[in-house]
Amino acid sequence: MMKFSFDLHKTDTATAARVGTVTTPHGDIPTPIFMPVGTLGTVKTLTPQEVTDLDARIILANTYHLYLRPGVETITKLGGLHKFMGWKGPILTDSGGFQVLSLGHLRKISEDGVVFRSHIDGSEHFFSPEVATQIQSELGADIIMTFDDCPDHQGELDEIRQSMEMTHRWAQRCLESHENENQAMFGIVQGGTYPELRRQSARFMASLDFPGYALGGLSVGEAKDVTWSMVEEVTPLLPSDKPRYLMGVGSPEDLFEGVARGIDMFDCVLPTRVARNGSLFTTQGRRSIRRAQYKSMDAPVELNCDCYTCSNFSAAYLHHLFKTEEMLGYRLASIHNLRFLVRLMERIRQSILDGSFSSLKDEFVSSYAVTDQSIRQTQKRKWVEAQRKKQPDTLTLQE
Amino acid sequence: MMKFSFDLHKTDTATAARVGTVTTPHGDIPTPIFMPVGTLGTVKTLTPQEVTDLDARIILANTYHLYLRPGVETITKLGGLHKFMGWKGPILTDSGGFQVLSLGHLRKISEDGVVFRSHIDGSEHFFSPEVATQIQSELGADIIMTFDDCPDHQGELDEIRQSMEMTHRWAQRCLESHENENQAMFGIVQGGTYPELRRQSARFMASLDFPGYALGGLSVGEAKDVTWSMVEEVTPLLPSDKPRYLMGVGSPEDLFEGVARGIDMFDCVLPTRVARNGSLFTTQGRRSIRRAQYKSMDAPVELNCDCYTCSNFSAAYLHHLFKTEEMLGYRLASIHNLRFLVRLMERIRQSILDGSFSSLKDEFVSSYAVTDQSIRQTQKRKWVEAQRKKQPDTLTLQE
Repeated sequence: MMKFSFDLHKTDTATAARVGTVTTPHGDIPTPIFMPVGTLGTVKTLTPQEVTDLDARIILANTYHLYLRPGVETITKLGGLHKFMGWKGPILTDSGGFQVLSLGHLRKISEDGVVFRSHIDGSEHFFSPEVATQIQSELGADIIMTFDDCPDHQGELDEIRQSMEMTHRWAQRCLESHENENQAMFGIVQGGTYPELRRQSARFMASLDFPGYALGGLSVGEAKDVTWSMVEEVTPLLPSDKPRYLMGVGSPEDLFEGVARGIDMFDCVLPTRVARNGSLFTTQGRRSIRRAQYKSMDAPVELNCDCYTCSNFSAAYLHHLFKTEEMLGYRLASIHNLRFLVRLMERIRQSILDGSFSSLKDEFVSSYAVTDQSIRQTQKRKWVEAQRKKQPDTLTLQE
Repeated sequence: MMKFSFDLHKTDTATAARVGTVTTPHGDIPTPIFMPVGTLGTVKTLTPQEVTDLDARIILANTYHLYLRPGVETITKLGGLHKFMGWKGPILTDSGGFQVLSLGHLRKISEDGVVFRSHIDGSEHFFSPEVATQIQSELGADIIMTFDDCPDHQGELDEIRQSMEMTHRWAQRCLESHENENQAMFGIVQGGTYPELRRQSARFMASLDFPGYALGGLSVGEAKDVTWSMVEEVTPLLPSDKPRYLMGVGSPEDLFEGVARGIDMFDCVLPTRVARNGSLFTTQGRRSIRRAQYKSMDAPVELNCDCYTCSNFSAAYLHHLFKTEEMLGYRLASIHNLRFLVRLMERIRQSILDGSFSSLKDEFVSSYAVTDQSIRQTQKRKWVEAQRKKQPDTLTLQE
């Protein structure tokens, strides 16, 4: 008997936003939920206790990364991923499909699976639907994902269709090889940016009766309005009594857009990655703590924030830590950004329950729309650097 | 009325080891004590709360570094160093003398003081006894140090004598300009490795009636037995009712040697610096967590350790964090090493009280004498690198 369920408590009248509870062997998860990413078995810079203190209710870990380091055998020997990393709450693992496919020339896809070389030492490995399912079973997460083919989002219709059809066959193979009763396997809807393929994939996945569904291959470079129109194609075709997970999406503004379209679960490295770069979420938008305006600011970064950082330290201190490259700065910024998203989701859930979601969304989005100039410059520089050293795409591979 | 005192509770019969309590405006400090170093207003990688949780009772901060970044004006504006960094316990600041003098060709010494260039941006600055005292007053530490001249430990007798004599004149100027009643100023005994100079310096400093005394210019490259013979020359000449602080010394084995010679206070970047390199204190000696032997070790690094790291994580997890360069590893290792020293000092205090200090020392030193091969190699490599890029000595400047 699988220890997994989803209870839908309320759906918004004006939008597709909904409130529910996901039940797993390691605890309940209120939805909609944002899941911090712990790529290598650690939410970067933080202890599991700190993640718990944020009131984060589930974290994500990456099968590809953990498979390479420390290796599945080690984690199994140490009692599974929960015990290994000291996290007592629910864990979701991805299947490794996205990472393996982003290896570029280091991988070769066939019907059977993907032969790839490690981005670390070049050693050769093989992932298939069966292997990915087996690895995830051994890692021991509460929610696991089917092994999918993630094609280039600029691919032609035929190419994306073939890829999607293989993803469908792979999903069936994942289901067939899935035996661990403590794990709920989610099917991943693909189909690129083609509405008809997205609908076809949604219908197919729904027919396999997964306990939950993910939307993959979105927010990978396509325009934002395309992302949301794809989500709009898919969610109505998925069973309303199952949770829906939009993979790799999690900026504050995107959470609102996703929730409004019926998404229940989100994950993204953004809050922790930008935090380590000194970029902090505020209700007015992202702000670079390195800016001179913070040098002597006695107030916290965000006035009404209850996070550990804002409760204990001034913006000036955080500015100093970043200027001197002290690791405590990366920690305090990560705590702030994650707590910002957790609180935002709490407000979103409450607003859906009391019928004020649309007004909260309007209010937030209009205020948040400002991103400061220094962040735009940093983003541009990072993008240029990433372009220069492409293949494999380390920005995709590493948190 | 100065809010500083020292109560001597017991002196060992077999050695010069002693137990006491230093009282400061921010709390009491049991001695002998090890003080973690928070160079730039943060004990590297840790929050103030974590430092408190280690039961560390006083921390050190560096005047030179804080003067350059974020600057005294900023810290003053933010309410002083305690408030700025969120540390509620006692703080000791050094005078900047050691750092400024280690700038090599970037500084010029005269009777008046030292003109130096910042190791960060090359900007020109001036420290004198009066300036260093004023800066320390504004930072607001509980214990401050006189501004001293720290000559090359290989200097000739005449050179070291002249330097020492200037240090003595500077100490008088520091005393004369010291007005902050909330701060106890310690005099620093110099004299290189010349016993007669050390004795002369000890007698001179004692005559100035400081509330505490430091031994400077030791453990800076001279042989260990020379260090300890210098300490033996000095401590008998210092008043027994005042605390004695051996600057920059704090390896586990050195704590025993210093305590046995009547030292009450120690500070050192070693525990946190080596921690970030994956080197962990154990009762058997320092161990590199990167070694393959830890890859699957389910037990904590140190079996009977009560630190947060050993209480919650396996050696295998720590090994994984270091292999993947996750910041959490640097944190967990820093916590372990600092807690190791705090506990060691607790045991040392207890052993002095119950008359078993000598046997504890023998037991510890014989067991600890093993340092594993991989650490020796790392140390050698670091030393070679430091030699290669000398001037200014960044190993001395940076924690």
